[in-house]
Amino acid sequence: MSRNTDNSGISRRDLLSGVGAAAALGVAAGAAALPAARVTSWSEETDVLIAGSGAAGVSAAIAARGAGARVLLIESLSRFGGASAMSGGVVYAGGGTALQKKLGFEDSVESMIAFLSLAGARHLPLDKIQLYSEQSAAHFDWLVAQGVPYTEKFTRAKGLPMGNESLYFSGTELAWPARDLAPPAPRGHVPGVAGMNGGRTLMQALLSRAGDLGVDMRAGVAASRLVVESDGRMAGMLVTVDGQQHSIRARRGVVLACGGFIHNREMLRRYAPELYDCSVPWGNAGDQGDGINMGIAVGAEALRMHHGFAIAPVYPPENVLSGIVVNSAGQRFISEESYHGVLGDAIAYHQQGRAWLITDQRSAFPGPQDNFLAVASGNSIGDIAGQLQLPRGALQHNVAYYNRHAANGDDPLFHKSRDYLRPLQGPPYTAWDLSVDQAFFPAHTFGGLHTGVDGRVRNSFGEEIPGLYAAGRTSAGLPAAPYIASGLSVGDCTFFGRSAGRDAAGLKR
Amino acid sequence: MSRNTDNSGISRRDLLSGVGAAAALGVAAGAAALPAARVTSWSEETDVLIAGSGAAGVSAAIAARGAGARVLLIESLSRFGGASAMSGGVVYAGGGTALQKKLGFEDSVESMIAFLSLAGARHLPLDKIQLYSEQSAAHFDWLVAQGVPYTEKFTRAKGLPMGNESLYFSGTELAWPARDLAPPAPRGHVPGVAGMNGGRTLMQALLSRAGDLGVDMRAGVAASRLVVESDGRMAGMLVTVDGQQHSIRARRGVVLACGGFIHNREMLRRYAPELYDCSVPWGNAGDQGDGINMGIAVGAEALRMHHGFAIAPVYPPENVLSGIVVNSAGQRFISEESYHGVLGDAIAYHQQGRAWLITDQRSAFPGPQDNFLAVASGNSIGDIAGQLQLPRGALQHNVAYYNRHAANGDDPLFHKSRDYLRPLQGPPYTAWDLSVDQAFFPAHTFGGLHTGVDGRVRNSFGEEIPGLYAAGRTSAGLPAAPYIASGLSVGDCTFFGRSAGRDAAGLKR
Repeated sequence: MSRNTDNSGISRRDLLSGVGAAAALGVAAGAAALPAARVTSWSEETDVLIAGSGAAGVSAAIAARGAGARVLLIESLSRFGGASAMSGGVVYAGGGTALQKKLGFEDSVESMIAFLSLAGARHLPLDKIQLYSEQSAAHFDWLVAQGVPYTEKFTRAKGLPMGNESLYFSGTELAWPARDLAPPAPRGHVPGVAGMNGGRTLMQALLSRAGDLGVDMRAGVAASRLVVESDGRMAGMLVTVDGQQHSIRARRGVVLACGGFIHNREMLRRYAPELYDCSVPWGNAGDQGDGINMGIAVGAEALRMHHGFAIAPVYPPENVLSGIVVNSAGQRFISEESYHGVLGDAIAYHQQGRAWLITDQRSAFPGPQDNFLAVASGNSIGDIAGQLQLPRGALQHNVAYYNRHAANGDDPLFHKSRDYLRPLQGPPYTAWDLSVDQAFFPAHTFGGLHTGVDGRVRNSFGEEIPGLYAAGRTSAGLPAAPYIASGLSVGDCTFFGRSAGRDAAGLKR
Repeated sequence: MSRNTDNSGISRRDLLSGVGAAAALGVAAGAAALPAARVTSWSEETDVLIAGSGAAGVSAAIAARGAGARVLLIESLSRFGGASAMSGGVVYAGGGTALQKKLGFEDSVESMIAFLSLAGARHLPLDKIQLYSEQSAAHFDWLVAQGVPYTEKFTRAKGLPMGNESLYFSGTELAWPARDLAPPAPRGHVPGVAGMNGGRTLMQALLSRAGDLGVDMRAGVAASRLVVESDGRMAGMLVTVDGQQHSIRARRGVVLACGGFIHNREMLRRYAPELYDCSVPWGNAGDQGDGINMGIAVGAEALRMHHGFAIAPVYPPENVLSGIVVNSAGQRFISEESYHGVLGDAIAYHQQGRAWLITDQRSAFPGPQDNFLAVASGNSIGDIAGQLQLPRGALQHNVAYYNRHAANGDDPLFHKSRDYLRPLQGPPYTAWDLSVDQAFFPAHTFGGLHTGVDGRVRNSFGEEIPGLYAAGRTSAGLPAAPYIASGLSVGDCTFFGRSAGRDAAGLKR
């Protein structure tokens, strides 16, 4: 075999992709990882190699550097920050954070555990929920210490604060059934800046901190394949820079923090058809599933691959919550005040992607509305039902039931709060299409590699793959379907990113 | 390293399991597959090695042997037949099979494709649906040629024939919405024997045929790890016999046909919580996920791991279909005549596992009923609703709507057939608990390795893993959630099992 090596120290032939090339590489398993023996010399070496510059990767970098390791962080795109920088920057924290206390809110670790384990998906990993909740107050202190700016301001308004308030109810805590399952507390901690700038602000602080600590950060370097020692340990990674392959050795560990796969359409269709059908893939351009696929290639187990958020952002304005949301049978199926991710999940996963918001004069969107199209309007509920071609008499029948009880302050089906509960009365009535392919319906993936609380990746036999870590949306973490609160994803990224970085830095080889 | 070899030709140290041992093995990836270089001599050799003796494995064996290969088929348990032998033995076939024609039923490939692609899960692999439908009539001829006995008898009764009829509507073809999506035809082909003996009869025929052809079949031989060449091709497998490890070389290919994972509780909880919560894990004792996990260990992609059947077998007797099925909000959510797998899916995946069948005097189960407990009974719908603690007035309201339309022969919500549609009237009324953890609610897994129509297993980069095949419930095949017809699982096993066996036998190395 020819050994015309380029500057990566591996032969050109090794760099070909595809089946034929994989065979030529002598890849031992999965045909998609490279045996370390094939790398004759490494382009670079570091202690901890981290792929991805979102909240998970940068938190891992800060932690690994803080533990004394040399850290190289690579980012496939030209700009750092990942999907986290595009997000609201909310971190879900509780159990009595400094900010909760300062603002006079009581919370407990037990309440937070109850909410996270009971209000959403069944059988989520309790070890992660418990550790995250127990260390949540300390984790918030860590974010403050990294320079993330928070204000001592709370808002009761639903939805991401557009002022500079830093604490709010970011999830479905106050909606039934969650409020009966766990004592509600505001746990959305968001950088205290006006507008949709929380994510950018959070990432500026973390990236600045990582730079100050001496993390070596390189943009435009794309992870492509893992390199594996003959004993199964991670040796490093093949990366691509300007179309050239290079090899980077990681003496202590590799952290995959490359995000999810919302922008890999074929992968999305195979794994998460409900998200594939949503109108707006919501993520960073780098959310191509690369980290997940590199992990699977070396035998990692991937979990909850069909999970994600599917979001129906009906509020603000809150007045629309006095309307009702119905399915194709003209039935209500949820409390309308539920958090966007909970409502979106119900529509995308459990109502075959179709639903409508029915409003009367007072509950209509007050101004121009880009997110949801008005697809029916009329002077009676019957008019609306006819235009939507709902089953004969069903909507009228269900509105009559709803109105009769709402007039008494009751919502027997879904216990909507009295703040929003009143009969639908007063034309014109309007139906707004909340269907996943018609509405503004952002979707993002939550499935990823199976990790422990230390970020170590596990294979299908429950064993750890030595030296391999994953964090953020490359891992299967706390966020699941339904997504019960804003801040769980970035919270999971920062918290378990730190765990992975610490563990990777301390790994003795 | 010590090389105290035992009769498998590999060192004792290599045989230890767990992380430490995996490292000692020099396993290149996933820490769970064995490099072929570590096998100093093989215990046995064959052309095609097949793990699993259910319909998929035995069909693969017959096909591979028919293609001229030496075939060794191993079964971990003491008895051949797998879950297929425990099943009804139904094969879903259509497009004009000999039996359909003989009995005067029209069907077309197009109708079958429409049913399989539109009536169930979204975004199923169309290439598999198309090939299966196009070759379905020929596949039925093949089953006949193997000696599977069919009678020229049809029954219109719902549910697996308990007489000796061989053709029936085995799925949800006649229920809405399926009947509007594809022209219905009876496609359940079942061996013509009385009682629940179809699976045993089918497997007796296939096993007998495999024996006649000279397939080497060994019971009590458990697959444990794949052995992989340095170029990524399958070399063979480590197996366990009476606690001793042996190694079997497969010159042409390895077919994993070890069933699903319904009896691996931890794996089930991680991947398929909805099935984990069902009362009756339904499968062969060998359904431990071994084949799936061996595949993942060498880099295979696993798909639809949360899918499965979850079955609410309310009929027979058919008179109960004049009752209504309601959720925790007291709402109907499906046509009660839907196939068991469709009803069960709606309850397990979309109604949080809870539902009740409400019957009146005429629609009550006529005799003793073991499958579903009567949890409420009374002289009015209100009595029932109160005992079930349904939302105030909801059930009464919904029964009034249902009754009003049923009296006119209409079911506006779910278009129940007139055969079963009539108002609920005449006490006593009874509520039967259909909840997944209270009722007899069998569950089986459908998730597995990603394969092409030729049974070749693919890795996470879309490449084939050379020499590795999967079939039946070890693969992600046609059966998905909702399970729209009996016979799709055994049909998929036999059809794609044959494909895998043929391809493995012809593989040139």
